[in-house]
Amino acid sequence: MTQNGTQPKVDLNADMGESFGPWVMGQDAAILDIVTSANIACGFHAGDPNVMARTFRTAIDKGVGIGAHPGFADLQGFGRRRLSLSGEELTNLVTYQLGAAQAMARAAGGSLRHLKLHGAMSNMASEDKEMARICYAAAEAVQPGIVIMTLAGTAQEAAAEELGLNRAGEIFADRAYNDDATLVDRSLPGAVIHDAALAGPRIAEMVREGAIITASGKRIRTRIDTICLHGDTPEALEIARSVRDALSGSGITLAPL
Amino acid sequence: MTQNGTQPKVDLNADMGESFGPWVMGQDAAILDIVTSANIACGFHAGDPNVMARTFRTAIDKGVGIGAHPGFADLQGFGRRRLSLSGEELTNLVTYQLGAAQAMARAAGGSLRHLKLHGAMSNMASEDKEMARICYAAAEAVQPGIVIMTLAGTAQEAAAEELGLNRAGEIFADRAYNDDATLVDRSLPGAVIHDAALAGPRIAEMVREGAIITASGKRIRTRIDTICLHGDTPEALEIARSVRDALSGSGITLAPL
Amino acid sequence: MTQNGTQPKVDLNADMGESFGPWVMGQDAAILDIVTSANIACGFHAGDPNVMARTFRTAIDKGVGIGAHPGFADLQGFGRRRLSLSGEELTNLVTYQLGAAQAMARAAGGSLRHLKLHGAMSNMASEDKEMARICYAAAEAVQPGIVIMTLAGTAQEAAAEELGLNRAGEIFADRAYNDDATLVDRSLPGAVIHDAALAGPRIAEMVREGAIITASGKRIRTRIDTICLHGDTPEALEIARSVRDALSGSGITLAPL
Amino acid sequence: MTQNGTQPKVDLNADMGESFGPWVMGQDAAILDIVTSANIACGFHAGDPNVMARTFRTAIDKGVGIGAHPGFADLQGFGRRRLSLSGEELTNLVTYQLGAAQAMARAAGGSLRHLKLHGAMSNMASEDKEMARICYAAAEAVQPGIVIMTLAGTAQEAAAEELGLNRAGEIFADRAYNDDATLVDRSLPGAVIHDAALAGPRIAEMVREGAIITASGKRIRTRIDTICLHGDTPEALEIARSVRDALSGSGITLAPL
Repeated sequence: MTQNGTQPKVDLNADMGESFGPWVMGQDAAILDIVTSANIACGFHAGDPNVMARTFRTAIDKGVGIGAHPGFADLQGFGRRRLSLSGEELTNLVTYQLGAAQAMARAAGGSLRHLKLHGAMSNMASEDKEMARICYAAAEAVQPGIVIMTLAGTAQEAAAEELGLNRAGEIFADRAYNDDATLVDRSLPGAVIHDAALAGPRIAEMVREGAIITASGKRIRTRIDTICLHGDTPEALEIARSVRDALSGSGITLAPL
Repeated sequence: MTQNGTQPKVDLNADMGESFGPWVMGQDAAILDIVTSANIACGFHAGDPNVMARTFRTAIDKGVGIGAHPGFADLQGFGRRRLSLSGEELTNLVTYQLGAAQAMARAAGGSLRHLKLHGAMSNMASEDKEMARICYAAAEAVQPGIVIMTLAGTAQEAAAEELGLNRAGEIFADRAYNDDATLVDRSLPGAVIHDAALAGPRIAEMVREGAIITASGKRIRTRIDTICLHGDTPEALEIARSVRDALSGSGITLAPL
Repeated sequence: MTQNGTQPKVDLNADMGESFGPWVMGQDAAILDIVTSANIACGFHAGDPNVMARTFRTAIDKGVGIGAHPGFADLQGFGRRRLSLSGEELTNLVTYQLGAAQAMARAAGGSLRHLKLHGAMSNMASEDKEMARICYAAAEAVQPGIVIMTLAGTAQEAAAEELGLNRAGEIFADRAYNDDATLVDRSLPGAVIHDAALAGPRIAEMVREGAIITASGKRIRTRIDTICLHGDTPEALEIARSVRDALSGSGITLAPL
Repeated sequence: MTQNGTQPKVDLNADMGESFGPWVMGQDAAILDIVTSANIACGFHAGDPNVMARTFRTAIDKGVGIGAHPGFADLQGFGRRRLSLSGEELTNLVTYQLGAAQAMARAAGGSLRHLKLHGAMSNMASEDKEMARICYAAAEAVQPGIVIMTLAGTAQEAAAEELGLNRAGEIFADRAYNDDATLVDRSLPGAVIHDAALAGPRIAEMVREGAIITASGKRIRTRIDTICLHGDTPEALEIARSVRDALSGSGITLAPL
């Protein structure tokens, strides 16, 4: 998971397996050709056992690292609505979904390498260290040594550090950062990077420098182990490809966690 | 799992963990004092991660063997409505639920010993050997060596035999049998045993003889490894206690699988 | 809905129809013999079309007034978990559930008289007047003139007043009030009335005086059109009966809205 | 609903509002420019209150007739899996969904004109007259006079006739018919019409003749009040446009029911 100055290495991840029953979401086949890690929905906010089976199989076939992407049990809200749950409920939610994902992964011929929280569960955990600790401790109990993807500069990072877990520091490919490492609010201009030609070189520079480069140009040193990409729109795919190309072109190795 | 003539041994099982969210079903605490194995719902037809966590913990605390009790994804119908699924869908359904149950069991400090199909999934598998094979092969792939509870004299038994799985032959404590080992139809008089005073001695005799005793008195030799009890009504609990007492009183050892 | 000094009249309401599929909740038959209005769950937080049909039929048979009791779409959380929804989402949620309840009521031979919000939707609306307005305006649009049950002294009341709706002021039979008309926090001693012998006379006094009597003995004048009872525990039923008896014994007429 | 020889008139219908939460299905905007009636999912097999609100509003804005499209409560299976329900359960299922749809339609400024059963519910009702009667009687009770779309030559037609309901006879734009008016099995060549250039003239001929024209060329006289189109693929949209153009070009009036 670490990187050294002479031979930088990074992982590219994207959420997938977010279809449900007859409903298709995302362009998993296309994004699987770009990323090195797949965060696969576990059936609570998206995905179902059939979608999971197909997604694990395809990711494994393409040599992409597989991970569990648990979320709140809120299909209609896609796990994006905040829910206030007790610690015990959170533990059970993560344990159940991770266990299901482990079995689905093994049935598809692979094994889970990482866990990344989804949607509101992730947002809340990035602000609430205790909540992050509870979720990550549950994951570590189910699969000791599992790599936890943690958003750089958030309570997620602090929680995983305190628990001494394997973790992969993550930054977003398409979001601008404030000088305190938080994301620029989506309502502000420039918050979301839409220009693929800029996105790639910008991320390559961050990875080479081992730092988030904020909107003002400030460098915030942080571990960058993985880049979060999206595959849900043509634009997102273009940015994803640009990031992949820019990183490869900079001599940075792209590899699963 | 086997029994010998001199020292007969049998397991007593019951479905539990069938509450959901705010809704309570069954009298798990009471039936856990009677049985030696608990078939725990996995969240698709009943149960949820919180109910599962509590149920696994309580069963483990009481020294009761724990098993997964997967069913169709049909909460409103409690998994009792027949659904026609493809082999792949069945495989995914069993794999997912069993994986989730494994993780919940481990988080509660135990490990699964057995699997028993629920409701319509079980009914259909008792008539359709191919369906039973698919479900059991999925379970065996997730947890090699897991004990499969199979209804005596049904396609379930044949499927588990053909696959060479660990299996536990099961009979019902409160149902009358026809001479071909099928259950007497519920619409007929005497189909369901309501008299606890009769139920216990009747089952003890079957276990001692290693045979189903049909309504007509015929003996059908079969492996009887476990007796299915119920805990959802006061009457059911009384029958369950009667069966336990009669077996103990006959020198038959009650032990988990 | 109004009351005059010489001939006081009040309605008694309780939530019901909260079973789901195979799961039974509450003792609807018993509480229906006590109340004059039934708040019937609409299938989102509890209830399903079959439960609704049975509940409407039974309530109508007993001459109890029927109302819709919509809640958040959160079965596992029983509609008790707070969800942040847009105004449009709230409107759609109330419209859908009320429309479904209208049709179910008519199919059972009756028609809806009132609406009462459930769980977190009610709690949030009692604090947030704008949210209450949105929910009530949606209900009024579906069924002009429908009576809205509003918690005395809350934003619910203010919202219904502002919209000029038919409303029924509601107090709780088993909760103590602070001097600002809010409920005494459940964590404090005396917050919940457990003594049936006290509950009845206390409520009768409030109705006769047309005022909430707070824990400190203060009178807060308010419209008391309906008393909220519960039927989910033996104690609750005893309190409900005590309230009914005390009101009847005080010459207060019990009648639906 | 009837047609006379000199001035033929027909309705074009398509299923829509089949998105759910974050998942989009179909190209409702495109198909709404082609059809004259919209069959709108009611939240059980697809759709949710928000999707329904948007779909009703758009259809009404475009002057398209609106109808309820109820199905089994089976989101993952999209209402396409057969479920064996009691008559009472069917009644409740249709009543609830139709009531909800009525309220959503009125809130969007319109009112329902028709009902069409979805998926497995429709398939089963086309084979089982008693089931069709139960579903249609429930609909008629909720909204007397509602137009029932019935598949030509099936038990649906017979049931609606026996009940004396307003009904609209329906044929498929893209399916070949056997000489007994059943559909050519999908596994056979030619079962599904893929050629838009053929589809339009073929349907125009059927409408002019007031008869199904079978694969062998046989004419089966039947009421053709509405043509079922699809909008879920580019090919389907092309066929839909071809049918619309061919009918218009033949002097047939396209109008809602």
